[in-house]
Amino acid sequence: MNTQNIIGYSLVPPTGKSFKAMSPASNTELEGDFSAATAADADAAMQLADKAFAVYRHTDAKTKAAFLRSIAEGITALGDELLNRCAAETGLPIPRLTGERGRTTGQLNMYANLLEEGSWVDAVVDTAIPDRTPLPRVDIRKMLVPIGPAVVFGASNFPMAFSVAGGDTVSALAAGCPVVVKAHPAHPGASALVAEVIMQAAKKHNLPDGVFSHLFDDGYTVGETLVKHPKTKIVTFTGSLKGGMALVKMARERDEPIPVFAEMGSINPVILLPQALQNRAEELAKTYGESITMSAGQFCTNPGLLLAVKSEGLDRFKAALGSAIVNVNSATMLTAGICSNYQKLSKERMGSDEVVVIGKSEKLNTESANQALAVVSEIAASDFLADEKFKEEVFGPYSMLVVADDVAQLETVIGSLQGQLTATIMAEREELAMYETMIDKLSAIAGRVILNGPPTGVEVGNAMQHGGPFPATSDSRFTSVGTGAIKRFVRPVAWQNWDNALLPDALKDENPLGIWRLFNNEWSK
Amino acid sequence: MNTQNIIGYSLVPPTGKSFKAMSPASNTELEGDFSAATAADADAAMQLADKAFAVYRHTDAKTKAAFLRSIAEGITALGDELLNRCAAETGLPIPRLTGERGRTTGQLNMYANLLEEGSWVDAVVDTAIPDRTPLPRVDIRKMLVPIGPAVVFGASNFPMAFSVAGGDTVSALAAGCPVVVKAHPAHPGASALVAEVIMQAAKKHNLPDGVFSHLFDDGYTVGETLVKHPKTKIVTFTGSLKGGMALVKMARERDEPIPVFAEMGSINPVILLPQALQNRAEELAKTYGESITMSAGQFCTNPGLLLAVKSEGLDRFKAALGSAIVNVNSATMLTAGICSNYQKLSKERMGSDEVVVIGKSEKLNTESANQALAVVSEIAASDFLADEKFKEEVFGPYSMLVVADDVAQLETVIGSLQGQLTATIMAEREELAMYETMIDKLSAIAGRVILNGPPTGVEVGNAMQHGGPFPATSDSRFTSVGTGAIKRFVRPVAWQNWDNALLPDALKDENPLGIWRLFNNEWSK
Repeated sequence: MNTQNIIGYSLVPPTGKSFKAMSPASNTELEGDFSAATAADADAAMQLADKAFAVYRHTDAKTKAAFLRSIAEGITALGDELLNRCAAETGLPIPRLTGERGRTTGQLNMYANLLEEGSWVDAVVDTAIPDRTPLPRVDIRKMLVPIGPAVVFGASNFPMAFSVAGGDTVSALAAGCPVVVKAHPAHPGASALVAEVIMQAAKKHNLPDGVFSHLFDDGYTVGETLVKHPKTKIVTFTGSLKGGMALVKMARERDEPIPVFAEMGSINPVILLPQALQNRAEELAKTYGESITMSAGQFCTNPGLLLAVKSEGLDRFKAALGSAIVNVNSATMLTAGICSNYQKLSKERMGSDEVVVIGKSEKLNTESANQALAVVSEIAASDFLADEKFKEEVFGPYSMLVVADDVAQLETVIGSLQGQLTATIMAEREELAMYETMIDKLSAIAGRVILNGPPTGVEVGNAMQHGGPFPATSDSRFTSVGTGAIKRFVRPVAWQNWDNALLPDALKDENPLGIWRLFNNEWSK
Repeated sequence: MNTQNIIGYSLVPPTGKSFKAMSPASNTELEGDFSAATAADADAAMQLADKAFAVYRHTDAKTKAAFLRSIAEGITALGDELLNRCAAETGLPIPRLTGERGRTTGQLNMYANLLEEGSWVDAVVDTAIPDRTPLPRVDIRKMLVPIGPAVVFGASNFPMAFSVAGGDTVSALAAGCPVVVKAHPAHPGASALVAEVIMQAAKKHNLPDGVFSHLFDDGYTVGETLVKHPKTKIVTFTGSLKGGMALVKMARERDEPIPVFAEMGSINPVILLPQALQNRAEELAKTYGESITMSAGQFCTNPGLLLAVKSEGLDRFKAALGSAIVNVNSATMLTAGICSNYQKLSKERMGSDEVVVIGKSEKLNTESANQALAVVSEIAASDFLADEKFKEEVFGPYSMLVVADDVAQLETVIGSLQGQLTATIMAEREELAMYETMIDKLSAIAGRVILNGPPTGVEVGNAMQHGGPFPATSDSRFTSVGTGAIKRFVRPVAWQNWDNALLPDALKDENPLGIWRLFNNEWSK
């Protein structure tokens, strides 16, 4: 395993500072000395990315698609070495990581398909109308083009799907933007393995030196240098509100402010409607017991908040969920820091006078370190409304049930919530019509509205929206999952009165790419 | 003429402070006492806009379209009263204002058509695949929805097309966002006339109280209160870099940061290629003499920078342009402040040792105040590169010709430029192929790339891109002109596993709106 920083096609000779990966399950060091990059390395990576951009922005769709497919193949070819390293570094179980690997290679292939099909560039053609009055119309044609070098921060909770070759990297590369990844220090080994794959794939397809770089740092210097670098044109991040907002602030204070797409998590409210509780309290308890505790609750879409009006059905739900949680095995959290933060916050929350614990896992695995025990607690809606702290995310397998006296109070609670990635309603189909206002309020605060299913499990496709109003993300107009994620990295450019032969292929009269275009106000191909 | 502030359907009784419109042509006060709004008025307008949003976000496309058409009709019905008031307040000539009125009503009708057609919501449907392995695919459907109340700042240079019922307001209203306009204090009368039209149109179509409000202020209090207001979800602005960045900063420092689309102008470089100069120096001089001086150079797309390699053709161009400029009549600028700023900056520029004046208008209209005399000056590329100040916009009929020793130096100059709304090449078609790198550099810094035509004159249509990399705008990913402008005001929302009957019409199985959708990865209707 190469543990050096990668700048384009060069491995950077290690300088003084290095760090090791930690196993969260054992609190021991894992093999490999990773070199922390310097500010000079970060500068070199961005300068090279900028040079590469001049070429890569014109690289044809087929080559880019082949590049992405090669990365997917390379990741698969790493086999157990990658899965085992991910497991060692994150504490996540192999079946979950196998699924995540499939998602990661699936994303790469999905983007390859998108490029090969080609219509994603949103080509719009308005041909000239020389005899229009009072003024002739001139020929104008518009399409999306890449905005420039992107800096991608690896996320702690998805060592593959939101890291080195994750959704941000793949959508940036597909758009035509070179990428400099700042690896997450919690899984440097997994990052290094994948970075090597990307470098080799870029070489294989003769892409310009600098189309991809990969830098380590267990501190903040490299990230800060990258975000502030004049050649950086966009930044993506998945993580905490604090971390995301620090980057947003840095990016905004530059001489040239740049966009940051930060996905900063959410408490993902789930509304349990009365009829559903009445009819299937036990089934709902089972579904939510699993969703809350999946991967130790370390999903952005973990349902941290359950909302319901008090009822007999709700009492049965509570009882069933309480018993289910008791028997949920503890799980290793991603890092010692995340675990101690979870212990602290969940204890604080449970220690609040207003909070009653419905159920708490009793299955502590004493053989492993950094274990999270799942908790479901309860709070009265009036108490929840009285203190903002209850609306903050507790990252981990913690969920809180807010009990309202009536529907009006439940709607008040919903109205008090901030922006969310997801909002869910568990309902019998026949009772939905009675809750139109409530459903409307949910769609006003969330990026994705789910009926009768857990919010965890994010489908990667055309229709996915993984984003939402602040503070779920820094810009609700974009998504970080699915084909829509490419839109973060592009801007429209219009060509006016241009020679057909010199236009980009997507805009030529004869439509040589055979893509869908809005041509004189009609969609055609 | 109503000179009061409008909050929804209420006229606000005048409080103490009032101000008058000034005629820039005569430096005298015009009739009408306009009441400056208070911070409390701004708060009331935003609170009401938020309430209106709960209804207006669901208002059907037909009703919104009819609303926009009624506004267009109302503006036309104002007839000469509006044109004359605009002329008195801005000093712009009636023919130019007549054209601008046509553009304004054209924009309103274009958006009505867009709404009636309906496909702009970018509906994407991925239906369920229950037997997919390893995991079933759940039904997900996505479309664009409005993000919330918008604050629109009227611009000084387009009293209709970028003001109360201008491109920002119409695209926000079309999206489903209530609008609070902060009128530009340089044309309060024109603003008041149009605001009244919008209020009446909203009433006519029974839209919720607060879908539109209109506030005056000759200071900064109202604008600041609006941008900082928690109910404001997006801000648009057209004006100076300083003004735009002040709003961006305010919006970013809120507890909930919100997007600001600020169009902050640009120097719009024009490259004159050698063969074109050789063949038609005099014709080019005529075209540019007119483009530079149109509306006293007070367009965002005014070509402030001409670039060429020295040649005999260029000498002829200079001579012809110099003589043409001498005979250009002076013109009244929009405000005394804009005029004195122009006088100061153009004098400073002309007083620089590096700058030679090629031509300066000698036709001063002594009967009117605030006259701008057109100037074309020249600077050597090496001097231009040595001092950043030469890259700053001089708002008005000022243009600078940068003369390079050779093509390499010309490319260096282009490489040194910041983001631009437009970049233009004047060329013989046969010489274009020799300048591929240069053309590529231009498209990398601009939102619109023009061949053989002036950048002034912005077509309002599907293919227009009026935007560009910073500092031309605050976000190059959006446009403020054309149908694309609606994208600033919307965000995607996905519905997962939802009941067909309860889905928005755009996402229903049977496609009742008959719109284009990406349905299971195929475009269909």
